[in-house]
Amino acid sequence: MKAETVYSFGGGSADGDAGMKNLLGGKGANLAEMVQLGIPVPPGFTITTEVCNWFNDHDQSYPKSLDGSVRKALAAVEAELGLKFGDSTRPLLVSVRSGARASMPGMMETVLNVGLNDATCEGLIAESGDARFVYDAQRRLMQMYSDVVMEKAAGIKPAEGEGIRAQLEHELEKLKEKRGVTDDTDLSADDLEALVVTYRAKVREVLGKEFPEDPWEQLWGAITAVFLSWNGKRAIAYRRIEGLPDEWGTAVNVQAMVFGNLSEDSATGVAFTRNPATGENAFYGEWLPQAQGEDVVAGIRTPNPLNSHSRTEYSGDLPSLDDVHPAPYRELDEIQRSLEKHYRDMLDIEFTIQSGRLWMLQCRIGKRNGPAAVRMAAEMEQSGQVSAAEAVMRVSPSQLDELLHPIVDPEAEKMATLLVSGLPAGPGGASGRVVFTADDAVEWATRGEQVVLVREETNPEDVAGMRAAVAILTARGGMTSHAALVARGWGMCCIVGAGELEIDAPARRFSVGDHTVAEGDLVTLNGTAGKVYAGELPLRETDVSSEYLSYFLSLCDRHRELKVRTNADTPADAQRALEFGAEGIGLFRIEHMFYGEGSEEPLFHLRKMIMAGSREERQAALDELYPHMKDDIRETLRAMAGLPVTIRLMDPPLHEFIPHEPKGQAQLAEALGIDGTELARRAEQLRETNPMMGHRGVRLGITYPEITELQAKAILIAAAELQAEGIAALPEIMVPLTATEAEFTHQEKIVRRVAGDVEAAQGCKLDYLVGTMIEIPRATLMAGKIAETAEFFSYGTNDLTQMTFGFSRDDSGGFLPEYVEQEILPADPFATLDAGVGELISIGIERGRATRPDLKIGICGEHGGDPASVAFCHAAGMDYVSCSPFRVPIARLAAAQAVLNG
Amino acid sequence: MKAETVYSFGGGSADGDAGMKNLLGGKGANLAEMVQLGIPVPPGFTITTEVCNWFNDHDQSYPKSLDGSVRKALAAVEAELGLKFGDSTRPLLVSVRSGARASMPGMMETVLNVGLNDATCEGLIAESGDARFVYDAQRRLMQMYSDVVMEKAAGIKPAEGEGIRAQLEHELEKLKEKRGVTDDTDLSADDLEALVVTYRAKVREVLGKEFPEDPWEQLWGAITAVFLSWNGKRAIAYRRIEGLPDEWGTAVNVQAMVFGNLSEDSATGVAFTRNPATGENAFYGEWLPQAQGEDVVAGIRTPNPLNSHSRTEYSGDLPSLDDVHPAPYRELDEIQRSLEKHYRDMLDIEFTIQSGRLWMLQCRIGKRNGPAAVRMAAEMEQSGQVSAAEAVMRVSPSQLDELLHPIVDPEAEKMATLLVSGLPAGPGGASGRVVFTADDAVEWATRGEQVVLVREETNPEDVAGMRAAVAILTARGGMTSHAALVARGWGMCCIVGAGELEIDAPARRFSVGDHTVAEGDLVTLNGTAGKVYAGELPLRETDVSSEYLSYFLSLCDRHRELKVRTNADTPADAQRALEFGAEGIGLFRIEHMFYGEGSEEPLFHLRKMIMAGSREERQAALDELYPHMKDDIRETLRAMAGLPVTIRLMDPPLHEFIPHEPKGQAQLAEALGIDGTELARRAEQLRETNPMMGHRGVRLGITYPEITELQAKAILIAAAELQAEGIAALPEIMVPLTATEAEFTHQEKIVRRVAGDVEAAQGCKLDYLVGTMIEIPRATLMAGKIAETAEFFSYGTNDLTQMTFGFSRDDSGGFLPEYVEQEILPADPFATLDAGVGELISIGIERGRATRPDLKIGICGEHGGDPASVAFCHAAGMDYVSCSPFRVPIARLAAAQAVLNG
Repeated sequence: MKAETVYSFGGGSADGDAGMKNLLGGKGANLAEMVQLGIPVPPGFTITTEVCNWFNDHDQSYPKSLDGSVRKALAAVEAELGLKFGDSTRPLLVSVRSGARASMPGMMETVLNVGLNDATCEGLIAESGDARFVYDAQRRLMQMYSDVVMEKAAGIKPAEGEGIRAQLEHELEKLKEKRGVTDDTDLSADDLEALVVTYRAKVREVLGKEFPEDPWEQLWGAITAVFLSWNGKRAIAYRRIEGLPDEWGTAVNVQAMVFGNLSEDSATGVAFTRNPATGENAFYGEWLPQAQGEDVVAGIRTPNPLNSHSRTEYSGDLPSLDDVHPAPYRELDEIQRSLEKHYRDMLDIEFTIQSGRLWMLQCRIGKRNGPAAVRMAAEMEQSGQVSAAEAVMRVSPSQLDELLHPIVDPEAEKMATLLVSGLPAGPGGASGRVVFTADDAVEWATRGEQVVLVREETNPEDVAGMRAAVAILTARGGMTSHAALVARGWGMCCIVGAGELEIDAPARRFSVGDHTVAEGDLVTLNGTAGKVYAGELPLRETDVSSEYLSYFLSLCDRHRELKVRTNADTPADAQRALEFGAEGIGLFRIEHMFYGEGSEEPLFHLRKMIMAGSREERQAALDELYPHMKDDIRETLRAMAGLPVTIRLMDPPLHEFIPHEPKGQAQLAEALGIDGTELARRAEQLRETNPMMGHRGVRLGITYPEITELQAKAILIAAAELQAEGIAALPEIMVPLTATEAEFTHQEKIVRRVAGDVEAAQGCKLDYLVGTMIEIPRATLMAGKIAETAEFFSYGTNDLTQMTFGFSRDDSGGFLPEYVEQEILPADPFATLDAGVGELISIGIERGRATRPDLKIGICGEHGGDPASVAFCHAAGMDYVSCSPFRVPIARLAAAQAVLNG
Repeated sequence: MKAETVYSFGGGSADGDAGMKNLLGGKGANLAEMVQLGIPVPPGFTITTEVCNWFNDHDQSYPKSLDGSVRKALAAVEAELGLKFGDSTRPLLVSVRSGARASMPGMMETVLNVGLNDATCEGLIAESGDARFVYDAQRRLMQMYSDVVMEKAAGIKPAEGEGIRAQLEHELEKLKEKRGVTDDTDLSADDLEALVVTYRAKVREVLGKEFPEDPWEQLWGAITAVFLSWNGKRAIAYRRIEGLPDEWGTAVNVQAMVFGNLSEDSATGVAFTRNPATGENAFYGEWLPQAQGEDVVAGIRTPNPLNSHSRTEYSGDLPSLDDVHPAPYRELDEIQRSLEKHYRDMLDIEFTIQSGRLWMLQCRIGKRNGPAAVRMAAEMEQSGQVSAAEAVMRVSPSQLDELLHPIVDPEAEKMATLLVSGLPAGPGGASGRVVFTADDAVEWATRGEQVVLVREETNPEDVAGMRAAVAILTARGGMTSHAALVARGWGMCCIVGAGELEIDAPARRFSVGDHTVAEGDLVTLNGTAGKVYAGELPLRETDVSSEYLSYFLSLCDRHRELKVRTNADTPADAQRALEFGAEGIGLFRIEHMFYGEGSEEPLFHLRKMIMAGSREERQAALDELYPHMKDDIRETLRAMAGLPVTIRLMDPPLHEFIPHEPKGQAQLAEALGIDGTELARRAEQLRETNPMMGHRGVRLGITYPEITELQAKAILIAAAELQAEGIAALPEIMVPLTATEAEFTHQEKIVRRVAGDVEAAQGCKLDYLVGTMIEIPRATLMAGKIAETAEFFSYGTNDLTQMTFGFSRDDSGGFLPEYVEQEILPADPFATLDAGVGELISIGIERGRATRPDLKIGICGEHGGDPASVAFCHAAGMDYVSCSPFRVPIARLAAAQAVLNG
């Protein structure tokens, strides 16, 4: 551990700076930086994250030197402000806050007003002249401290609703009832003084000990409670979800209290240097008169707009800060400008105005949703504020994903029943069944339901439920409330502050006017507009014409080295993927034509082929199938004119195409004019115990070379026909499931022979490749041999992951979630490429390229659209990734970031 | 190519010797060797195998120099014998025979009596004074030559039964009918002279050209026919089965004819320097008076015994050679002794006595069956004739396997209906359905039937059918007939020369006396005794107490480095394996106790556990299961006292233990006292699409740690109980299906904890290991990590092969045979370790040992008993192989040979 355990800030100088986040946490580092910039910050000090780790490694004790360092730092604060901690005349009060390397909003503990006791109260009353404010501060301290320090940190686990905080709040409610008032603010100073006495007795009664009067005992209790909360249940759960390491630890920030709730010329607020929901370059924020910062974040009161930019339909005619407090606002505006310039990024700042004087309490890189991230990156690059490379790094793949989320179909929306409006806190559309508790959200989601979590307001205890939901709707809170912050971070559809909602959680229903929605009813949210509709509305993919998006993606394209293709089976998919920037098709599954709309006729011929009793019958059925197949392939090749199209030969086992129930079999038998029992017998013969490892892929092509021949003919004649029209067709014919070089050459010979025939017959020269999917572990080992004839490899990482792990995708649901939960695996290997699978991929690339240095190599499994996996593919030296059309932009970004992270 | 294309032998000197098999073929090299040893051999010369390859590479033409070399070599033969090829007074006749590096009995062509034409006939008649003999020789030449050279080698493919040979034989039959005789020998010289004229006309009519009179044309035609036959259908099929490479080519041996059929003091025979069926050290053979060698091999006449050792119940009182021709016999006996001493191995020799003079026509290492091979190896080593290492290399694993074949249960045999007796040509017992053609044998076998192929006699066209059968029964032929030779080579049950059989092949039945057996009827053969029984008799494993076997295996043990364990699930299996020399158990499958006899009660508890609705119910069922499991394990540990026993934790998916049909489910529901629909629902829930890659192995142990705990407890308490009895128990607890190190450590922790508990409770120190099966490709890559905690690896090569190839064992029957057939794979990878799987194994060993140099490594898949795979395991550095009890001796031999092949 470093010698220094405490870093001071204040009075124009600071021990730390913004570069020291690992040691001081984000909050502490940025407070120090602001002080260094000459910005008004209440003085204080930061106890380092190393102390947190020491604390956890040493049985929750502290290094010996810490006490002295804290006293020294506190003395500096006292000197700076001319106050004294625990002094009965000019008492110093402090806040004790957590601050980890990354923001973990609301996941750890905070204690305010530390240092208040009967003696210092008197001093503070004398100084402020406002006894009501002081007793209110004292009862707030008691509520917070008895809960956080005396109960939670002591490991006491009261029954639901019987915690000390709830019991004290109950006393407050009783008092308000007795006085016949509804607002705290209507209680008098005497009422609150009496309440403090009641609280003291209640604490003694419930927790069996006195509320500490010693300010130093309060301070150390608070510091310890914050350190302990690093390993609290909520914080651990949050770290799991966000993938943050336990070893980081939290710092503790002890800072002189300033009071936004002191007098009429006091206020508090939260702001962003640009609009975090749209990216617009305008100072944006919310404030509350005579309030503490916690009141804004907690979303208890609907906040006022900071300025005209920040005004929404919900802020109505609430006064803006620039109107009410013009001087501090001007100062604030200057500070935010200089901060953004200094940090070269959009910032999230917290401020308090105490009796007309502005104090900055926090500044950090501001969270933003996807559209805002893209717009900011594009505009900051355009203005020269950041380089193109920096701009590319400013948008995370999941943020970009938000832009690509479905939206509520606008036509359907026009006709829909609007239930309620709220703040558009998370973009996109979502439909789901209403649930009223986080636990219910988790439970319903586990059994496969899409749920919308509806809450008065959310709090950190709700995180798991919020994660499980497809959307969040709250009745209270603003754009910086807990629900809004969390949803924005996750790119999740979210509407907050829908004040007309009357939620009856115990009865599991809510009503708006005379409309009642019960648990399980369907609702649809338009998170971009903040509208909630009854029932399930159709969703539509977003239209990605945004100028910012295309500009941003052009920045990505400037850096990336990987090509990005798409997995597409139809001209429509191909067209959409082209709009998303696809540079070809990496996977066209030839069997798609036997599924879904329009598949009746080709499927019938295929079935006839499967049921054929002889090679001749099979050939006749294939001949009937041929024109369908050729036309189908040709139209996708046409849509991708001039770009490569990888066409995979038939992959599924034949039994997939035969009905399994007796009725379907009987119908098919009749249609084919064959005996029903014969058909059933043949279907039974085709049945497999482990179809994933059965008679499929290239194995079909070896048993039935005429099927390969048909496909080769359909592809190559389609290409020849387009060529005759003057359209460049670049088919890449892909043999699936190859395990040995002989399998591949067997098929390759057929394709080459057919190609020679087609070229001779049509008098043309075709531009095509023959290669193979690498999806069998053995193929990666034999890649050197296979590459002797294969012109390209495309990694089928779905199957490769299955075989490498021996995990059936269809069946692993029975244990895989538990594997991730128990950290037996770091992630679902079907979502993010596993290290073992990755090693096989690398072996295959190395051996393949050793034989054929210009071997074209790509990936066409689901992983092709997963950013971490794209980074792997770049590092492994692939030529391209291929993914679903909607993942193409993500892959373009991930490929660029892979280069920049290089 | 070497400059020399022709190697001469004769007159006491030879260009070649026995070391030149690759160039001269086996026959040519040994003829040269015999000449060099001063043994009487008809002079001749060998055209090398390189000429064969040249011939095939050059459009079936010959190198220019060949003609001159052949003329020169033939001139030397003429000089040696004082004869002249094509001369009308003292004509030289020659045989033209194939001779590859390895013996390919009957697979290539032979032409005898080359050089006979009308002119040389006259000379030969004058010289021999036996016109009948000469015309008979001429008509034999014409039959053979017109078939082999003029028809087959010319590529003419006549309809079935319309080949020239059949048509000429038909003329012979017609003539015999006309003369009212049944034997060829009853035809007169005039008859045969006329027949030659008829033949000449028939050849002209059928083949459209003259039978060649030019001896040189005859000679080159015959040489070319032999070279062509290397790539004939039969020869290719035989090489496939035997795994011989096409590149070897055949040599051609041209040798002066000697005639065993010339006069009354002429004879011919085949002999072995030791008994090839028993290994007994006694000169053994068969002969025919006034016959050619072909007559013995073809099995047309039942041969006479060579001497008293060779007399069997079938040779009755036929005269022996030592009685009839004592002088040549004595000479022959001396020659065979000197030859065996020279070659230091048992030899197969062919001889002809022409007019009282002995000629050796062939000598080669004699084929022998398994029991004979073992006895000879043991006795030759004991007598100092060969070293221990040589003795070990003298027995092939498949020969050893013969000793371990089942035999007909002797008790059942006593009561059975004997149909017929014959010569015991291939040992062991076999039961199967009777078929009458090779094609039927293949077809029936393909659909899973065990068939016994019943034929008058077999010929090389029948090879595929013989291979497909479980046993062969012929009505004619001796111990050196085609059927006997082939069956012996394959270690197959075979009875030949069962002369009482009346076979009606077209009607698909045979009769013996008044007993008729139709196609599809079951028969049982005792190949060791030569007895055929009606119906299916029980077979019994052989009793391997033979002194020769145990001595031979002790020689193996002296050389091998691999330990050999067994896969055994019961004390009985363990006991048997110990008798076979097993040094521990490599795979004890804990789930065996839920299958078969005595499994009702444990299976019921297991099912109760599977259907349990809560952890508590599950635990209760496990508690009931515990004593069964513990006792079961203890008794196998007891049987293996002092030897390691690898116990694999539960591997199969749970649905394997639940009935799948409604009736079974209803019964189970009633027995368990739960609702039938609930049970069906749960069974359906457990069902998997690809169970091989589903919820099984270690995955079960992670989901249900209590199951692992139960097993650990049962194993370790069983060990503790034995320890208390003073019996050393060495369990090695094996976690199946590990893919990640975290899976393993999860289970290992449970086992260690239970072990600690048991040791504490019982006050003992247990001697156990915890390790894992390596059967998932990923595990081989992660072996370095896994070995951090795993104390041993056991390769489960069945599953590893499945996953590495993506071949489901259950389903690959649909394509795998075709893969081997089409040479897409060199062998069934489930029988012999594949190179790709082998690479993964090696990676795993290397990485595992890098972490833990003393990591114990073995194999427990089916491959552990496959000799080629055992050699791989040795080379890869494993510590042991484990295989089924009956494969243990094979593995001991293969392990020793792996060292010696070094």
